[in-house]
Amino acid sequence: MKRRKVLQNLSALGSLAAFPEFSSGISRQPAVAPVRKIATEEAFTIPEIADAYREWINKEGVNLDRLVLKQIYDTPDARLAASNTDVSNRDRAALGMLPKLLDLDAIRLSDMEAGGVSMHILSLTMPGVQVFEPRQASALARLANDRLAEAIRKQPARYAGLACFAPHDPQVAAKEMERGIQSLGLNGFIVNSHTHNLYLDDPSFSPVLEAAEALNAPLYIHPRAVSDGMAKPFQDYRMEGAAWGYGIETSTHILRLIFGGVLDRFPKLQIVIGHMGEGLPFWLWRLDFMGSPGARAGRKNQLKPSEYFKRNIFITTSGVEDPVALRFCIDKLGADRIMWAIDYPYQPTAPAVAFIETAPLSDVEREMIAFRNAERIFRISR
Amino acid sequence: MKRRKVLQNLSALGSLAAFPEFSSGISRQPAVAPVRKIATEEAFTIPEIADAYREWINKEGVNLDRLVLKQIYDTPDARLAASNTDVSNRDRAALGMLPKLLDLDAIRLSDMEAGGVSMHILSLTMPGVQVFEPRQASALARLANDRLAEAIRKQPARYAGLACFAPHDPQVAAKEMERGIQSLGLNGFIVNSHTHNLYLDDPSFSPVLEAAEALNAPLYIHPRAVSDGMAKPFQDYRMEGAAWGYGIETSTHILRLIFGGVLDRFPKLQIVIGHMGEGLPFWLWRLDFMGSPGARAGRKNQLKPSEYFKRNIFITTSGVEDPVALRFCIDKLGADRIMWAIDYPYQPTAPAVAFIETAPLSDVEREMIAFRNAERIFRISR
Repeated sequence: MKRRKVLQNLSALGSLAAFPEFSSGISRQPAVAPVRKIATEEAFTIPEIADAYREWINKEGVNLDRLVLKQIYDTPDARLAASNTDVSNRDRAALGMLPKLLDLDAIRLSDMEAGGVSMHILSLTMPGVQVFEPRQASALARLANDRLAEAIRKQPARYAGLACFAPHDPQVAAKEMERGIQSLGLNGFIVNSHTHNLYLDDPSFSPVLEAAEALNAPLYIHPRAVSDGMAKPFQDYRMEGAAWGYGIETSTHILRLIFGGVLDRFPKLQIVIGHMGEGLPFWLWRLDFMGSPGARAGRKNQLKPSEYFKRNIFITTSGVEDPVALRFCIDKLGADRIMWAIDYPYQPTAPAVAFIETAPLSDVEREMIAFRNAERIFRISR
Repeated sequence: MKRRKVLQNLSALGSLAAFPEFSSGISRQPAVAPVRKIATEEAFTIPEIADAYREWINKEGVNLDRLVLKQIYDTPDARLAASNTDVSNRDRAALGMLPKLLDLDAIRLSDMEAGGVSMHILSLTMPGVQVFEPRQASALARLANDRLAEAIRKQPARYAGLACFAPHDPQVAAKEMERGIQSLGLNGFIVNSHTHNLYLDDPSFSPVLEAAEALNAPLYIHPRAVSDGMAKPFQDYRMEGAAWGYGIETSTHILRLIFGGVLDRFPKLQIVIGHMGEGLPFWLWRLDFMGSPGARAGRKNQLKPSEYFKRNIFITTSGVEDPVALRFCIDKLGADRIMWAIDYPYQPTAPAVAFIETAPLSDVEREMIAFRNAERIFRISR
């Protein structure tokens, strides 16, 4: 991506002059050379899983994920053409996503090239294999991981990847996680929040957390639509998904791990969350006030919430290209715990690139967030 | 409060040197004279409502509010003395709150004096009268408003207040709101999020919103425990209340008003939310990206979420004494939309005072947030 194009994209970010707090010791201008960029929350799928979703979304009683899955996997092009007035811009955009999700070759590499993106850390897109029954889920996870490893073998400089697994088939999942790291050479794990309405604090998932800790590889907890037990206020106005529900589903999941003592039981577990920390960094003062040891109400945690954040949690910038929020998170968590992401193909690449190229950061901070942290946390060697 | 004491309290806020972004044009030191302070989310109750809660919390099927109400209203002192090991610090503190909630005289005025707080804007504490059946709720609302007006008449320089009402008795509520402003001289309204699991976007509540808009008085939407339809993931680890559920309940409520088109139907409605905007300011970039007109998915809003914030919503600092979060909110919303609050008696006065006295703000910003905005928004004359 040419520097001129990056600067043109600046208009999409609003005027930096509106942020007077970024006033000294921080470069206002992009670095002279574009920074190396590793995008850390980049989605893909495989045809077999796309087919399985098409079947799943038409079943009875499936959860709110069906709304967005229907848009992506189940709307024939003909219906789009016939419904000019009923389809919003975003709904329309959803229809173009499937070819990009399925592609690990020409389309994706060309989009990366156009954006000057060095690497995608790939992960099976939400809601992963978690919506299927355990045996089917484990089989599809294995298939997806094999395809992912194959794509990485072909493009080792451009792709890294996270292994998926079926949390509700925990013994098989733990073995698949081991295979993902030790045989396939993958860089961590991906899970899409709840599994059949259970969160990872449920004791049945302990083998999965044991495996992640033992393999010393990070677990990316990605959003999906809110679980059934909190669905009602989110089921109107399309609030179940990216506009609101995803963040609340995932932040609530993380707090169940913290307040449920999971991070006391697995003190070395490394968790990654997207979307600028799913709102949690903003709440840390109050979480500490209300949730510190000694202030607890029926909780027995060893540390303050903010201390778990600094020990166990990394965040990415996926879907939140807001320099003010980024600065806030650096102040709260440190630049060494933040990684850049695009959320390809759901978010466009160019503004995400312009964001990391032009956000008011020191050169050291920009390099950490753009690629150095990702190299360290996901063990990516050049 | 003496300047020396304020400065001693500074240690509770952590080192300001940790916030390098507050570097120029902003005074690091407190103003020479303490600023006038109007606290805007200060709780009280009356004995009749305390009695009614004691009855309500022992009924079948009541919602998660019962957990905190039991601590405040239903634990005999003897049980506390007998259960040293089982009662956490915060549970213990809850037991001391009832006398302060019931007091509009000596205890409160002395706490205000000690903290150098000029005025409390009083509101009936959560969950208000909304948990009772409509006729009882309307009667208790009327009684609470009469007592509130009486307390203000005795201490017009120290107290202002918000009228409560029974949203589920909407015609009576609208009349009580009119009486609250026009006869009792109160300064706005208080509602505690959902009413029997319905939010204010439910068409049954239209008379209440019409009244608030017509009377040109702000409606404070205060938290309560999450509604039944989202209770399940919040019912463990005491996540239903101040540690997490309150914020999610209230922020989700606000987004139902935005995405449900309520602020298009009532464009002059003025809403106040506490706890540094219940996390919403942090999400505004993504809310705008996902929720703008044209990007909508089944929503028909006229404005971007951030535009509703700047037109219809004020925030207070209750329970979030975090100078980094405050600066973030000033950048996002403007200092003219932020008011200081203590959340008395749930939060201690001294640290809230130290926060507003010492947060890195310009003198103009500090005065706006400490009292000028409250005077303007709640129409308080000296």
